[in-house]
Order: sequence, then structure tokens, then C-alpha cells
Amino acid sequence: MTRVLKAGILGATGTVGQRFILLLSQHPYFTIHALGASPRSAGKTYAKATKWKMAQRIPAEVQDMVVKTCEPTGEFLECDVVFSGLDADVAGEIEMAFLKADLGLFSNAKNYRTHEEVPLIVPMANPSHFDLLAHQRSKHSLSKGFLVTNANCSTSGMVVPLKALQDAFGPLSKIMVTTMQAVSGAGYPGVSSLDIMDNVVPFIGGEEEKMEWETLKILGSVNKDLNGFDLLQSTKVSATCNRVPVIDGHTECVSIEFERKPAPSVEEVIRVMEEYRTEAQALGCHSAPEQAIIVSREDDRPQPRLDRENGNGYSVTVGRVRPCNILDIKFTLLVHNTILGAAGSGVLLAELAQKKGLIV
Amino acid sequence: MTRVLKAGILGATGTVGQRFILLLSQHPYFTIHALGASPRSAGKTYAKATKWKMAQRIPAEVQDMVVKTCEPTGEFLECDVVFSGLDADVAGEIEMAFLKADLGLFSNAKNYRTHEEVPLIVPMANPSHFDLLAHQRSKHSLSKGFLVTNANCSTSGMVVPLKALQDAFGPLSKIMVTTMQAVSGAGYPGVSSLDIMDNVVPFIGGEEEKMEWETLKILGSVNKDLNGFDLLQSTKVSATCNRVPVIDGHTECVSIEFERKPAPSVEEVIRVMEEYRTEAQALGCHSAPEQAIIVSREDDRPQPRLDRENGNGYSVTVGRVRPCNILDIKFTLLVHNTILGAAGSGVLLAELAQKKGLIV
Amino acid sequence: MTRVLKAGILGATGTVGQRFILLLSQHPYFTIHALGASPRSAGKTYAKATKWKMAQRIPAEVQDMVVKTCEPTGEFLECDVVFSGLDADVAGEIEMAFLKADLGLFSNAKNYRTHEEVPLIVPMANPSHFDLLAHQRSKHSLSKGFLVTNANCSTSGMVVPLKALQDAFGPLSKIMVTTMQAVSGAGYPGVSSLDIMDNVVPFIGGEEEKMEWETLKILGSVNKDLNGFDLLQSTKVSATCNRVPVIDGHTECVSIEFERKPAPSVEEVIRVMEEYRTEAQALGCHSAPEQAIIVSREDDRPQPRLDRENGNGYSVTVGRVRPCNILDIKFTLLVHNTILGAAGSGVLLAELAQKKGLIV
Amino acid sequence: MTRVLKAGILGATGTVGQRFILLLSQHPYFTIHALGASPRSAGKTYAKATKWKMAQRIPAEVQDMVVKTCEPTGEFLECDVVFSGLDADVAGEIEMAFLKADLGLFSNAKNYRTHEEVPLIVPMANPSHFDLLAHQRSKHSLSKGFLVTNANCSTSGMVVPLKALQDAFGPLSKIMVTTMQAVSGAGYPGVSSLDIMDNVVPFIGGEEEKMEWETLKILGSVNKDLNGFDLLQSTKVSATCNRVPVIDGHTECVSIEFERKPAPSVEEVIRVMEEYRTEAQALGCHSAPEQAIIVSREDDRPQPRLDRENGNGYSVTVGRVRPCNILDIKFTLLVHNTILGAAGSGVLLAELAQKKGLIV
Repeated sequence: MTRVLKAGILGATGTVGQRFILLLSQHPYFTIHALGASPRSAGKTYAKATKWKMAQRIPAEVQDMVVKTCEPTGEFLECDVVFSGLDADVAGEIEMAFLKADLGLFSNAKNYRTHEEVPLIVPMANPSHFDLLAHQRSKHSLSKGFLVTNANCSTSGMVVPLKALQDAFGPLSKIMVTTMQAVSGAGYPGVSSLDIMDNVVPFIGGEEEKMEWETLKILGSVNKDLNGFDLLQSTKVSATCNRVPVIDGHTECVSIEFERKPAPSVEEVIRVMEEYRTEAQALGCHSAPEQAIIVSREDDRPQPRLDRENGNGYSVTVGRVRPCNILDIKFTLLVHNTILGAAGSGVLLAELAQKKGLIV
Repeated sequence: MTRVLKAGILGATGTVGQRFILLLSQHPYFTIHALGASPRSAGKTYAKATKWKMAQRIPAEVQDMVVKTCEPTGEFLECDVVFSGLDADVAGEIEMAFLKADLGLFSNAKNYRTHEEVPLIVPMANPSHFDLLAHQRSKHSLSKGFLVTNANCSTSGMVVPLKALQDAFGPLSKIMVTTMQAVSGAGYPGVSSLDIMDNVVPFIGGEEEKMEWETLKILGSVNKDLNGFDLLQSTKVSATCNRVPVIDGHTECVSIEFERKPAPSVEEVIRVMEEYRTEAQALGCHSAPEQAIIVSREDDRPQPRLDRENGNGYSVTVGRVRPCNILDIKFTLLVHNTILGAAGSGVLLAELAQKKGLIV
Repeated sequence: MTRVLKAGILGATGTVGQRFILLLSQHPYFTIHALGASPRSAGKTYAKATKWKMAQRIPAEVQDMVVKTCEPTGEFLECDVVFSGLDADVAGEIEMAFLKADLGLFSNAKNYRTHEEVPLIVPMANPSHFDLLAHQRSKHSLSKGFLVTNANCSTSGMVVPLKALQDAFGPLSKIMVTTMQAVSGAGYPGVSSLDIMDNVVPFIGGEEEKMEWETLKILGSVNKDLNGFDLLQSTKVSATCNRVPVIDGHTECVSIEFERKPAPSVEEVIRVMEEYRTEAQALGCHSAPEQAIIVSREDDRPQPRLDRENGNGYSVTVGRVRPCNILDIKFTLLVHNTILGAAGSGVLLAELAQKKGLIV
Repeated sequence: MTRVLKAGILGATGTVGQRFILLLSQHPYFTIHALGASPRSAGKTYAKATKWKMAQRIPAEVQDMVVKTCEPTGEFLECDVVFSGLDADVAGEIEMAFLKADLGLFSNAKNYRTHEEVPLIVPMANPSHFDLLAHQRSKHSLSKGFLVTNANCSTSGMVVPLKALQDAFGPLSKIMVTTMQAVSGAGYPGVSSLDIMDNVVPFIGGEEEKMEWETLKILGSVNKDLNGFDLLQSTKVSATCNRVPVIDGHTECVSIEFERKPAPSVEEVIRVMEEYRTEAQALGCHSAPEQAIIVSREDDRPQPRLDRENGNGYSVTVGRVRPCNILDIKFTLLVHNTILGAAGSGVLLAELAQKKGLIV
């Protein structure tokens, strides 16, 4: 490490923004340099502008920072990286303005995930998609700016073990997943207590479509000319998404079929997951967990309350790996939806970019 | 109705037994005549023997009834029907003793569900399996006794729409289901609050096996000689069962494939479910809901807290009927696990048996 | 009963309005005649205008009724009684307009509770305050109109046993209460799940002040000239209000001191509560519960989930009556906050008014 | 620090024992040397003997330690301190045997709290009660052994601010408290989910008596002869204890009256709490939080989910300090019931004893 990078946060007062602040505070590579939020918050100190909802206290260093509007001016122009936790209804325009101002952006918003010149990267699944950045910069005539998106929270957890298996055993032909998602995924105030106490809501708007499409881009590859993406063509994904009364941690019941026949055994699948090492570990990224995937051998795991903090929220915990009567293999996974599934992905992407020399 | 039938309840102090009491109290066909429980409870009044956990108060008529041991003697011998909410560890022996005493038994226990001479009946799915009773009586030399089991709570909900579809469109080739089950399914004290608050437990011992096997018997048929069952041979069932922080009501995400090609459309599936009428309705059974299956057109239904009381807990509520990217059709269903999924099935079975002249 | 009264509901799409609809649907005295809501809802059918959140389904009779704006015109002018579940920010103006249009109003809003010419009545505590209506009509030159308010949800539960004790043993000198209030008290969407799951919020804006002040008016009396209220002068009330993760049912821990020395014994207190009969019972009001106060002798009652439906939500359940080391007597009570504590109070008030001949 | 002390844990597999293990693992003063549990667990490795329920994983160092029976033999005899998380039904006999074996014991069990020769110490309230140890050793002819108990979880939180106020303003004449206690206080499996979801249980066996009595001993003093305790004589305590659906963190609504007239103002009370420093801070104990009491100025704090980890679970968080209409001052406090309210108290007591030279 030669220098500490200046980080800006867009949407800093929201749920994802608060998590970015916790993760970046006291981070060895980054210092929080600029905070952006809506005009209503701008001009106030962060402590006053924010309805803080994290179990840890507001880091002292940001308490008195003055919140700015989300424009590529002033302190934001001094940032080496900018993290966006903006809502989708404003992210499109703001992020494009920041990109055009030649700033390096890691976005948690969905707006550009499907864009053909924007990488959609889950840091421990497809860091190779950073290879598109040269084309992106050239296309937009940027010297140092870029725009990289991370995936939907549920997708972010699922693709890690799927990538491990795809690397080891070749393409998956079918992926069925049923999720049980935490309320924090909906932001604040988000889900009304009257809707979720003693209840399950069997629907999350747009979530199933995101899981079904994003998986094909993430598990696909950058094309040969390094100027676009080859999405998976022969893989079918079917997702069912539910909201359950859990604060943090999405649980996902996955069943998969391999193209390869015979399919790998349960023990082979477990071994591949346990041995899975990614570029994040190889490059020694600060937030990379020792194990990308922790496999539990106990019957009744993973559980959100007991496993969501595994690897400081950066590991995916997998359990109940067993044969499926219809597809090949079933398992249940858990992902901390606001760490690995949101802000943490952004932070780990920035660490990867820094290690790869992409932040200049 | 010519006469009110005397009903006995085995396991009367447990969770299922309490529900039996609520459902039979003030029932027009039945009067509660005998209550059986463990030797520890025997000799006490019901109010003293029971840790009552229902939201409704203990019916006045049973408060001072004296609890007996679970033996086919005394008042139990005077019963026209006996309902068993016994735990599996004692149900086997006790229920057999009652059967041999020529008593008519409806059991919620799992012990005899897999027995080749014992019908496993979900009242609005396979009442035709009552046809085996003549053989059962002959085999055991009974004049009026019989043993009929109801299904596991999760199975009980799922097979109702599946039977409707099978009747209309022919056999199903594949059934995948992921459940989110309520804590009341585990009895009392059952699930510790420390295990389920802010949590999901991705495992329920034996539950997946029950769903996978029971479905094949229920959706199968009595054989031609009326002395055994032809289980489904070509249908594959894959079940994943989870416990969630919900008090009552199991939610199940189901995806199915039909043998018939092309598969029926979403609208055909919905129409068949809505129009499904069963023998319970045709015979005018007291507890039969107007609609066996209620189909919700709203995106975010069924929900346990809002839909579990539909049809007084006897209807299955279905929602989100839509195409599946992997199998043919997906939907989500809700069943009240202690009514239609347990004691209510027993009661509705007894009503059916009475209407069919099987209680003599 | 000579005729069925036409009822209007203001704020019909809100949480309190939905409860009014459930309580008035199929009520023998009333028929729902007009539904009022915000201009955004007006013109739509009730089913379309409402985000229905009750566990029971929308009554068929209101599904297709067209929602109006909250103005004293059209069908509202034909109403014999109007129930208001309006939010405080609009209730003041609208309710005054309805009163001036000579309509009879029962309001759940706080706006006029403190007004010197408006009765604040908990139906099973101070129905004698209806005696002010003659003065109110005279003052506003009304022939049949009136405005009666019901109390805050927490106050509504507490004053019932306190009035029973005051009637029997004379004035209370001190009342300390700590509440644990359900989320439904905050309306919909109301309390965010992120604020209340695995949590307690030790504050509800304005609630403590309401409990402390309203109690003095309700337990006070109409003055001798029947043109105002004599509030209690020598009683001190100290309230602490908390929100807990409960859907319906406010639990309140109360400790009281009597002026009378020696104070009544625990057994005397219990007897007085159990024997408490009110005008609502005496006049045979339809919704009046058999017992205004149910006293539980079990250690661990009342509990919201088990006791909130007592008396169909119209009874107050009291338990743990015992001596206090500091004041005289302590007990815990439970009130269904949206029935007896809100809409149900309005309905029972209307029944009382009808029986007393005040609805002309 | 000259040497690391060997620590034994009795009741190591229970809820309190698990917390002891987390707190002592990697503690700079202690190394875990012996684990004791029931004969059923003895002989197994800790990982196998324990149903681990903490959100953090089992520390690697204890996974393979073999659990012993709770007898003062073998490795327990080598321990410098022994922490007891035993259940009350066995703690009496076992702890006495350990004491007679001249071992130094910190017990979380209630058995000896009321004993006249056993200190009952809340580490940031009455560490001066350690002064009785010389008499205890002399009485039992011990060279290094001792028995010190910590208080009930609810008492442990309340006495910290009360002691600060008593030190500053003199005796309190009245203390009223209503608690809302977390389910973890009842151990595992403890509270059934069916008893607490969507519910409040207004009773915890023995809890109110403990709060009322323990407070008088803790806020009292060692007598002049240093051979017994002078309990508070003129202070009245009235406690009401409730269980709420919260995992960790007891919330307590407290109202107090001072003997001193006029009573201190709200601002004086806040200042005294904020400035309160104890021997634990003065001696630099490892686990002593920077602030024994954190006072929140926000309306809606403390909240268990947001504040229980304050000071790593060792701080008491106070909020809503305001005048009481009946007594002098009201406030709400929060204590982490399994850290400061249980195992953490034991650990902090051991740190204090070590700093004071009492562990020899």
C-alpha cells in the first residue's frame, strides 16, 4: 500500500450508505472524504441528516462531516473512488454524471447492471469482468473513471458457490432457487412491521427477474474482443423470492443440474466449495474472508442469526448439500445481504480494483 | 343427521389435541365423550392437566372432564369415533390397541401412514381411499373399527391443488417444493424462541421424506382388488423444508411439470383450481369450506397472517401462479397447519366417513 | 330496535377505518352507508382504494362501494351516525364541518378530546358524560348532531378497572403505568420492521401526555350545570409508554394508591373488578361483553396473543393483582388496542347513544 | 500483568457458560483451563457436548477440550479462578465443594446471593463488598479460595445508575421498576417460541423478588466489622417483570424518589450518570467500558437492538431522563443481560479481584 485512497459515498444516509460508512471507517486502504445525499440532507452534518439504524454507533470521523448534494463537484472530484448506495430512481442520472466527470464508481444500484458496457461483478465470482474497463474508458474517453456495478443481494450470494462448481465441473444447465430474504434488504423504513411480523410475504418486486438475468451475466464471460459480455446461453434459472421476518441474512434453497453426466457427487461438490479460492484471497484483499464458502456439515445450518457474520459478513455459508430427486444436487446457502450482498461487495470490488492497478 | 356421535380424543392435552377440542366443541355431529393423555395427566380435570395455548378459551364443556389414560376401556369403548393426536413414540402401540378393540380411529400420527392396509387420506384430495376400509376390517376381523391416517401438515396443503390438476390434466411428472413452516407444527414447547426469532432453520427432521413419500400414496389410488394402494410410479418429488418465525400457517413454493405436452396454461391451471369441488362439498360436510382452493390474483399473496383463516382454516390458498423457467408452472400455497394440516383433516375425515355410512 | 341506522365512516381506508368496517358489517343496529377517505381514494371502489390489512377478508357489502371525499354532502347527509377514524392532521376541520352539518359523530381522533364542550367517553367507564350532549347541541344550535370522542387506546384499557375501583373505594391518589404497546396502534405502514423486530422502542410521541391527561377527564365528572367537565384535581398520573413487537393488544403494568386508608385488599380489588357491570351491559348493548373486566388468577396472564380476543376484543383482562411495595396495589391489564382501544369504543358508544335515545 | 490466570468454567455448555467462553477466549488475563458440565456431557469434546447458540463461532481453543464433571479435582484444582454458570438446582452443592477445596469462585447462580458471608457484587456498583473476603476466608479456613456472586441480570443493570445517584445525592427512598426482558435470560431452550412470538409474558418466576431484595444488599454496605452486610433499611423497591420478544437486552423503566429535598434536577441526574467513574475504570480493568453509563439524549433510546452492544455489552445505556409526576425522576435503561447481566459481570469481577490482589 502506497497511499490511502479518498472515498466518496453517494446515498450516504440510506441503509446501504450507512453500511458503506461502517465498512470504510478505519479501513486501511480508504478514508471517507465526501458524503452525498438528497438536497433535503445536504448542508447538515451527517449525524443530523441521518436516521442511523446500525447496531454499531456512528463512527466519530463522519459524525460532523457535512453532507453534500450528489453532484460531481468539490470534494467528490478529489475522490479516488466513489461508492453509490443510491436508490434506482435517481441513480441513473447521477452515476452517469459522475462517470462523465472521470470518476471511478462502484454502484450498488440496479440501473446499469444490464448495460452492455458496464461490468456486473460479484467480487468472489467474476473479477475477470474487470477486463472490460479498458473498453469502457476508451468508449467514454475517460482517463481514470469507470463504472462497475455489484449484483442484487440474493444473486450475490448464490453465484459464489455456483461459480466454484462451474469452474470445477463445467456448465450448469438448470438452477432453481427459492429465497427467504431479510427485511433489511428493503431499506428503511422499508417493510412495515404489520406486513412481516408472524408472516411471510411471497413476493419481492423485480427480485426474481434480477436473479434470473444477473446470474447469466455474472456466470458468463467477457467476450474475446474485450468489448462486451457473453451471457450464458444454455442455462435456465428459475427463482422464487420471499420476504421473511429476519433482520439480516438471506437464506436460499438451491437445486442445480450439471450439463456433465454423471453429475458430481455430494462429496465432490462439498470439496470444491471448501477449496474454492478466488483472486480476492490470492491478492490479499483486506476484506476477503479466509474462506469464500464455508460448508457446514450440521443438519440445521446455515441459519441467518448464527451464520450471517461468518467471514465478517463476506463469506457465503452453505449447508445441507444433498442429492435432489429432480435435478442433481440441492443445498441451502446464506449470504449477509447488506455486506456481501450490497455495500461489502462494493468495498471488496474497490479493494480488487486497487490491487489490480485499476484505480489510478 | 340422525344422531350425535360420541368422540374420544387421544393425546388430548397436546397441541393437536387442543385443536381437536376446539374443532369438536359445539360441532353439530360430535360430542366430546372421552379424553386420553399420558399417565401423568390421567385423573386430573382437563383444565388442570393441560397447558392450554390456544387463543380461544378452553370450551366450558371440557374444563372439568377427567382425563383418562389412553387405553381402550371405559368411556373410550362407548365412542363412535376416536381422534388421535398422539406423539409418534407412543402412537403405534396405543392406536393398534384401539383398532383391535374395534374402535374407529382417525390418526394424525405418522406411524401407520406408510402401512399397506391403512389409508392415508387428505379429505379434499383422496377420499376414494376410504374404499380400502372393507378390506381392513375383514383383515382384522372388525365389525365397526378402522384406522385412517391423515397426512403430514405440509403434504396436506400441497396435495389439494396437485390433485385438482392431476384430475384435470393427467399425471404430474415432477414436483419441487420449498416450504416455510410455522412453529406450531412442532408442538409445545417445540421450537425454542432462541432458535427462531430473527432466524430461519433450514431443516425439519423427517419432513422432506414425508412430503416426498406421502404425496405418492395420496395422489396414487386404491388397487383394483381394493386391498392395497398403487403409489405413483413415475412422479418425482423433491422437497426442502424450512422453519420460519410464523405462528400458524405453512407457506409452500411449488413448481411442477406435467406429463402432458403442451402443459396447461397459467389460466387453465387457475381455472381448474378455482372450480375444484370435492366429495366433502358434494356431501355437504359441516367443515368443508365453500372453496377447497382459493386462488389469489394479487401479487403478494398468500400470506400466513392474512390467509390462514380462509375457509375457517380448511381452504388452501394459492397465489402467484406463473410459468416456471425450468418446470412448467410455479405457484405458492398456504395451508393452516394445525387445522387443514392436522386436527381439521381428522375432523373432516370423520365427517366424510359419517356421510359415507362408514361409522356404524 | 325499530330501525337500522345508516352509518358513515370517515378515514375508511386506514387501519381504524378497516376495523370500523369489520365491526359494523353485519351489525344488527347499523348498515354501512357512506365511506369517506382522502381525495386520492375518492371515486374508487373500496376494494381498490384500500390496502386491506385485516386477517378477515373485506366484507362483500363494502367491496364495491365507491369511496367519497370527507365532506358533509350526499350520502353522508343521510347518515344517522358517522364514525371518524381520521388522522389528527385532518380530523379537526373535517369533524367540525360534519358537526356543523348537524351530523352525529363518534371520533377516534385526538383533536377534540380536550375540548371543554366535547365528551371524552370510554363506553364502560364514563357513559354519564353523554349528559353534556344537550349543552353541546344548544351551544352549536344543532337539532340532532353531536360530537363525542373516544379515548387513546392505552387510556381506554386502563380507565375501565380504575373506574370500577373508584366507584367502589373512592378516589385514587396516584396512578403509575408502564405500557407495552402493539404496533397496530401506529397504523399502516406505521412502525418499520427494522425498528421493532428483536427490539423495544421506549417512546411513543404524545402517548404519555394523553394517558396522563385523558384519565383525569374520564374519571372526572360532568359539572353540576351540565355544561362542562370537572377533571380530577387530586389524582396524579405518571405514564411510561413503550412499543413492543406485538401485533395487537396493549399490555399495561399499573400501580395505584387509594385516598382511602386502609386501602382495599387484593381480594376486595379482584372482587370489585369481577363484579363490575356497566350501563353497556345493563342496556343490553350488542357489543357489550358479558364481563367488562375479566380477572385471571393465573400467574402469567394476561398475554396479548391469548387474551386480546376476550369478549370479542371488548373486555379488559386483568391479572397479577398483588400488593405494591410503594403504592397500594399493582396489576397488569390487557386491552385490544384496535377494538376496545379504538374503533370498538366508537361502535359501543354508538350503541349506548342509540339505547339512550340520543340518536334521533 | 505478571501471569495469565487459569480459568475453569462450571456449567460450560449452558447459555451462560457459552458466554463465559466467548468472553474469556483471547482474554489477556485468563486462559481457559477446565470445562465442567453435567455427567451426560462429561468425557465428550466441548464441540460435541454443546448445542452452541452464539452468533460467533466456538473459539478454536475450546473445540476439542474434553468436558469434565463439576468436581474439585484434576484440572479444576489447578485453576486460579473458577466461573460458575450452573443452574440453581445444582449450584448450591457444587459451589460449596469448590469453595471448600480452596478455589476462588465467581458465581452467576442465585443460591448464595442472599448468604450473609457471601458478597453479591455488581462490578461497577459495589466493588467495596470485596472487603468481606478476608472474613469469608477466615470463617472457612481458606488460604486462597473465596465465593463471590454476581447479581440477577435485571438487578445488574439497574443498580449501576442507582449507585451513581446514591453516591452523588444520598439515599433513594423509593424505586419502582418495570422490566421488558429478553428471552436469552431464560437460557436454552428456555422460552418456547409459541409463548413469546407476537406476545408479552407478564411474569418471570422469582424475578421481582430478586430485584427487590438484591438491590438492598448491593446498594447497602459492608458492616463496620467487615464480617457482614448492612442492607438498606429505608428504601422501598417495587418491581414488575415482563418477558418480551427480544433476543438480548433487558429494558427497564425506572422511577425513583430521593430522600433529599428538593430532589436533584434532570440535568443534575444526567450529569452525575455521565460522569460516573468506578474502580473498574480506575484500575484499568480490561473489560471495563470507557463509560459505565451512557446517557442518550434522543427521545427514543435506549433500544435493545441498537444499544445492547454499547461498551461491548458492559455499559448501561440510559435514556428518557425526565421528571415523574409521582416520584421524582423517571428514566429507561438497557443492560445486555448475558454480558453485564451475567457472564460479563463475573469476568469483570475477576478482573477487579486480580487488580486488587485478591487472586493469590
